[in-house]
Amino acid sequence: MSSTETQATRHVLNLKNINPHIRNAKYAVRGELAVKSEYYRAKLAKGEGRDLPFDTVIAANIGNPQQLDQKPITFFRQVASLLENPVLLESEDVLVKSLGYKEDVIARAKKLLKEVKSVGAYSQSQGAPGIRHSVAEYIERRDGYPASVDNIFLSNGASSGVNTLMHVICAGPETGVMVPIPQYPLYTATLALLNARCVPYYLNEAQAWGTSIDEIRSSYEKAIKEGTDVKAIVIINPGNPTGGSLPAEDIKSVLKFAAEKGLVVIADEVYQTNVFIGEFISFKKALRDLQKETPGTYDHIELASLHSISKGMVGECGHRGGYFELINFNADVAQEIYKFISIQLCPPVLGQCIVEMMVNPPKEGEPSYELYKSEYDSIFKGLKERAYALYEAFKKMEGVECDEPQGSMYLFPTIHLPEKAVKQAKEEGKEPDEFYCFRMLDATGVCVVAGNGFGQREGTLHFRTTFLAPGTEWTERLVRFHEEFLAEFK
Amino acid sequence: MSSTETQATRHVLNLKNINPHIRNAKYAVRGELAVKSEYYRAKLAKGEGRDLPFDTVIAANIGNPQQLDQKPITFFRQVASLLENPVLLESEDVLVKSLGYKEDVIARAKKLLKEVKSVGAYSQSQGAPGIRHSVAEYIERRDGYPASVDNIFLSNGASSGVNTLMHVICAGPETGVMVPIPQYPLYTATLALLNARCVPYYLNEAQAWGTSIDEIRSSYEKAIKEGTDVKAIVIINPGNPTGGSLPAEDIKSVLKFAAEKGLVVIADEVYQTNVFIGEFISFKKALRDLQKETPGTYDHIELASLHSISKGMVGECGHRGGYFELINFNADVAQEIYKFISIQLCPPVLGQCIVEMMVNPPKEGEPSYELYKSEYDSIFKGLKERAYALYEAFKKMEGVECDEPQGSMYLFPTIHLPEKAVKQAKEEGKEPDEFYCFRMLDATGVCVVAGNGFGQREGTLHFRTTFLAPGTEWTERLVRFHEEFLAEFK
Repeated sequence: MSSTETQATRHVLNLKNINPHIRNAKYAVRGELAVKSEYYRAKLAKGEGRDLPFDTVIAANIGNPQQLDQKPITFFRQVASLLENPVLLESEDVLVKSLGYKEDVIARAKKLLKEVKSVGAYSQSQGAPGIRHSVAEYIERRDGYPASVDNIFLSNGASSGVNTLMHVICAGPETGVMVPIPQYPLYTATLALLNARCVPYYLNEAQAWGTSIDEIRSSYEKAIKEGTDVKAIVIINPGNPTGGSLPAEDIKSVLKFAAEKGLVVIADEVYQTNVFIGEFISFKKALRDLQKETPGTYDHIELASLHSISKGMVGECGHRGGYFELINFNADVAQEIYKFISIQLCPPVLGQCIVEMMVNPPKEGEPSYELYKSEYDSIFKGLKERAYALYEAFKKMEGVECDEPQGSMYLFPTIHLPEKAVKQAKEEGKEPDEFYCFRMLDATGVCVVAGNGFGQREGTLHFRTTFLAPGTEWTERLVRFHEEFLAEFK
Repeated sequence: MSSTETQATRHVLNLKNINPHIRNAKYAVRGELAVKSEYYRAKLAKGEGRDLPFDTVIAANIGNPQQLDQKPITFFRQVASLLENPVLLESEDVLVKSLGYKEDVIARAKKLLKEVKSVGAYSQSQGAPGIRHSVAEYIERRDGYPASVDNIFLSNGASSGVNTLMHVICAGPETGVMVPIPQYPLYTATLALLNARCVPYYLNEAQAWGTSIDEIRSSYEKAIKEGTDVKAIVIINPGNPTGGSLPAEDIKSVLKFAAEKGLVVIADEVYQTNVFIGEFISFKKALRDLQKETPGTYDHIELASLHSISKGMVGECGHRGGYFELINFNADVAQEIYKFISIQLCPPVLGQCIVEMMVNPPKEGEPSYELYKSEYDSIFKGLKERAYALYEAFKKMEGVECDEPQGSMYLFPTIHLPEKAVKQAKEEGKEPDEFYCFRMLDATGVCVVAGNGFGQREGTLHFRTTFLAPGTEWTERLVRFHEEFLAEFK
């Protein structure tokens, strides 16, 4: 966090005259709770935490796998080391014989270097063409429908992709974008920054956080009545923070609704490989299927789909890589998108290279395949196991209800808090769920995010936790804390 | 560039209903000329360019050293290779004996890994604390005045820092920011996106593109009369696109003016090590000097200074690293800045590590120092030589006037074009300088940016070229083209 020098008494900029839309934006994932957890972490690191009732801080507030000991995938990082220091390619013998680099690692590094020349050079603003080509091929394999390199835009994580799309769509204070509630607060924060309207639609907690078309319709109609120019609908699948994974019917009914009302569909599909139950269906595939079933009816849907290297089994958050695909966007509008992103020059080039490796990993029969596959599978298995361990822990906690883990990196349990706790929260000027999460942090060192940071139905309380932290000791801390909390406020 | 699928006839989004501020923004550095040059490059790469009068495309439109064969600094990239693949640290013997990695390379990689844990993990949104600490130490050494780690914000190149500062400052359509003309168009583009007002002040071409306080004052007063709420002044030093390097008096007079009028000072100092004549003086040092000379008079100035790994002798554009320092900002405002950047999570972590190495390179006596020093000096010398070679070429060109190279990576010559050429430009719907630059590209394969992309005094014409491309053959192409152009339009 930032403090500043204090010698001055007058300031040009103050809270009253800066951009009010920044002041209004909320982003709880890195908010006060996270700041307090960093304070505890620093205290422990300095050896000053002997008064604390825990000896480690667990950052379960953010999907940051490698901060929580997830090992990066060897193939990606071996290639990256060569991209960073291409001089090593002059010592292939040493790489192969002494360091165990396989020939496909070396070949991939050479291919990517040919494409970008140097990871220290700016690329095209839309991303290096050869990398976009690999992305298009991945989408074709995934969906069974063609994809074009011209429609792929590499980005700085998926977040910058969302920022770009929202910037283009939001034309003024009447523009509305439909956003699921609960949602990843990037959406509401970006809409607040753009002074546009969030048109919230509630997800259906009773049905594993699926979409309800009635809910979407009534929210849309309410917004229209209020004079909102509803332009787009966001879907996060698999869900963040809910962890829900949408069935095909939900996806199709959202697409049909978008076609009926003329809405751009923004599909946040960054957790597309984090699915434990059923299988992932992309909005693009569902759209193409619909188009095949009823020719001519869905051809006008504009769809943008986002992906990222930060999630999945890749977990390379710090490298800030991602992409979005534009489907059926007006070419003139795509040009404006290009201009917008060009002002920030280009996404990190090494992040682009990791996008390439994510969508085009070693194939069966290639030298690095076995290791890649075993690392990938073991990360997947580990995430699933930890998700279920946490789920089991929640089952033991009185007044806590949680769906079976389905996907993404989160669980989002409902919590029922005693009256006395709610009253105490009010006295401290906190939301009840926030109050609970602060108490949890203070007692256990586990940092989660209160449900109100994502939005939740009036009268319900939740929190979001990742299941990335290794071991089960910390889940036991949670169970113990919860018991003590209930005892205190009963 | 982007095209899109064409089967659809109706679109939700079109040029008339998207964000009008994006439509209004202009960013010539990656505009039409650059797009055409990419087209030529692709054509040549496919072996299809036999009809073209050149066999290479020279991208002199953008400061992208490593695209133009500048070798990265070995120390940075050796460390980066270890950050990417820390498993290599288990084979220190191989690194040292077979690959020539020095012990300070290994030590730095370990230090940085301890700081960030993994370059694949998100860091704090403001940047990893240990890296900000190195930046603060660098600023202290550079200026001889203290700097605080809390006031350093790492960024995604300097561009994202500018974007952040402009977002916070621009509160509404009346907010004005003073911008030098000519300027790097990031500033006008960002102001256009934010629907705020650019308050232009002309630099003094007759005095090596210095600032003129009379010019600044009259521009300020005009803006105030028009109801503009002038909040900040941007200075780019050394200049982009001008290449000018400001003398101490210019810097102090800008600071005095800012103190008088209550303006935030935004000092874009990304070219601080690219100075050929005189020495670089930071706005922070100048401010602290003024405060010492006249205690109490300048304590209320809010200053933000930006730096980047993309320029200097580092040239690591593709890694997207940079920082800004806030001086005397209100702590509440700094918190809002923190919240704003946290929405995009964090700057690329490897870019942050390169920031650390840029500000804290090998020291005299350390094993990597000699090589570092010789690489650094040779890049500096090469840039200077090429700047002067280009300068000499411009001297040979009739109707072209150019200052002696002073700094940054650019020359910005004035061009006087024949009447007939101006007329022809008008007929083709182009600005005369743009017309000239397109002709240059078509004839030589050299891509520069027309002066109107940066702003220039009415009735004057310029173009900006980098002097990064190796060799002098391409400067001869320019001389020949210019002669032929004059002959054609005389």
